[in-house]
Amino acid sequence: MTRATLTEHIRSKQNYLCVGLDTDPERIPLSLRASGDPVFEFNKRIIDATLEHCVAYKLNTAFYEVSGASGWESMQKTVEYIPSTHFKIADAKRGDIGNTSALYARAFFETLSFDAVTVAPYMGEDSIRPFLDYPDKWTILLGLTSNIGAADFELQSHLDGLLYEVVIRKAAQWGTIENLMFVIGATKPEWFEQIRAIAPDHFYLVPGLGAQGGSLQEISEKAMNKDVGLLVNASRAITYASSKDDFSEKAAAAAAAYASEMAIYLKKSASL
Amino acid sequence: MTRATLTEHIRSKQNYLCVGLDTDPERIPLSLRASGDPVFEFNKRIIDATLEHCVAYKLNTAFYEVSGASGWESMQKTVEYIPSTHFKIADAKRGDIGNTSALYARAFFETLSFDAVTVAPYMGEDSIRPFLDYPDKWTILLGLTSNIGAADFELQSHLDGLLYEVVIRKAAQWGTIENLMFVIGATKPEWFEQIRAIAPDHFYLVPGLGAQGGSLQEISEKAMNKDVGLLVNASRAITYASSKDDFSEKAAAAAAAYASEMAIYLKKSASL
Repeated sequence: MTRATLTEHIRSKQNYLCVGLDTDPERIPLSLRASGDPVFEFNKRIIDATLEHCVAYKLNTAFYEVSGASGWESMQKTVEYIPSTHFKIADAKRGDIGNTSALYARAFFETLSFDAVTVAPYMGEDSIRPFLDYPDKWTILLGLTSNIGAADFELQSHLDGLLYEVVIRKAAQWGTIENLMFVIGATKPEWFEQIRAIAPDHFYLVPGLGAQGGSLQEISEKAMNKDVGLLVNASRAITYASSKDDFSEKAAAAAAAYASEMAIYLKKSASL
Repeated sequence: MTRATLTEHIRSKQNYLCVGLDTDPERIPLSLRASGDPVFEFNKRIIDATLEHCVAYKLNTAFYEVSGASGWESMQKTVEYIPSTHFKIADAKRGDIGNTSALYARAFFETLSFDAVTVAPYMGEDSIRPFLDYPDKWTILLGLTSNIGAADFELQSHLDGLLYEVVIRKAAQWGTIENLMFVIGATKPEWFEQIRAIAPDHFYLVPGLGAQGGSLQEISEKAMNKDVGLLVNASRAITYASSKDDFSEKAAAAAAAYASEMAIYLKKSASL
């Protein structure tokens, strides 16, 4: 999916919501567990229920790998089920030497038909290059994450600034705003402004609505750019809005609530 | 596998060779391709042929993921086929927020029965902790890698030294020499001495024999410690020693050659 198309979807649907399909086999309602593939069955219903309220889906690969080969099958069926109107992210945090990263890129962009994959920066440019080289696909690089461990390295001082700033500044040279996004999980909203000074035009994938605890208003006010430039993810707050048989209705309602809040911030930003 | 057992295997077999099963479906000899699972069939023969010449096997997950669910099945069958006398490494380079890393740990340590998994340091301690918390399992953290991209971040100056030095120094506090190793792919052998000054007692997983081009003699002389403390990996140089039907005999010969060279360095080090 091109940047123009993604932005168009955001404008026409008036939201920048990404629904995280972090589907824990043990939290699927009992009524679905008799089906041949409960994880896919659950995802299918969540997708059906949320499709009109979001522009993207993000599958966290760990939740599928924990079930081994059958989990990968659920992941494959899920990504194939999501219509091409929606941006499909593999939250995989991969990264290895070039020939290995090339295989990861093939795994997520060809074997599975994701539009984007999250990658880790530690090993540098040649570990990222094979992802960037895919036409019409996106690389989403870890910039600043929202976990406590961000303090260990990402927020440590480097000669040229904090490590995550160095990472964003350097990686912004490797890709373009048409094929590279950053994961930005700022726990302090004012950081978004500093990060926008480094990468003003890139899209940011922001985790952390609901269970991870970010404020949608603060994220939106501080991180939105002229092309919106934001995908904000909510996982458990949508998929586990109810643990009962009304889970898909409750998921739709939770997604709709985020989407209408987003519409307000989009209007506000357009009127500035 | 405990450190004592691993060291015992190294001492009794007189080598510290890890065979990398980076099995490219397209490089499997034609005679095996008719089987139901050519990747597993290939791995099985490589394992049978090399078992007596090595102490560990390493599966690079990208080579399996590229085939999707069926690749994960080949990986599962392979890891189950490797006898418990050998140390089994998932070269997966995972790392995510705590609850996600906990699922990756379960995927590799329980769903698949690996002894160890490689992880990336960027997201800090809580992204590594779930791997370290597994009893009798090992976490192998990226320290210094051998690719060109190592220069982008790993070798950049931090206030307290180069980034990879900061990573090793800090992570050495999170685990012990009984559950934490480092990936050290030093392209300049003298770096091994500097790294040994930071982490003298840990095991290092060293990639890069053969195709990645390290010298076994230099690695061994500079990086060995009193408990050996080394697993040196060779992938393509063993698995693709021949592309014909004699591939397993040629793999055995290549592994045996590395093993006997290692025996020399072990004797030399014992006599110092």
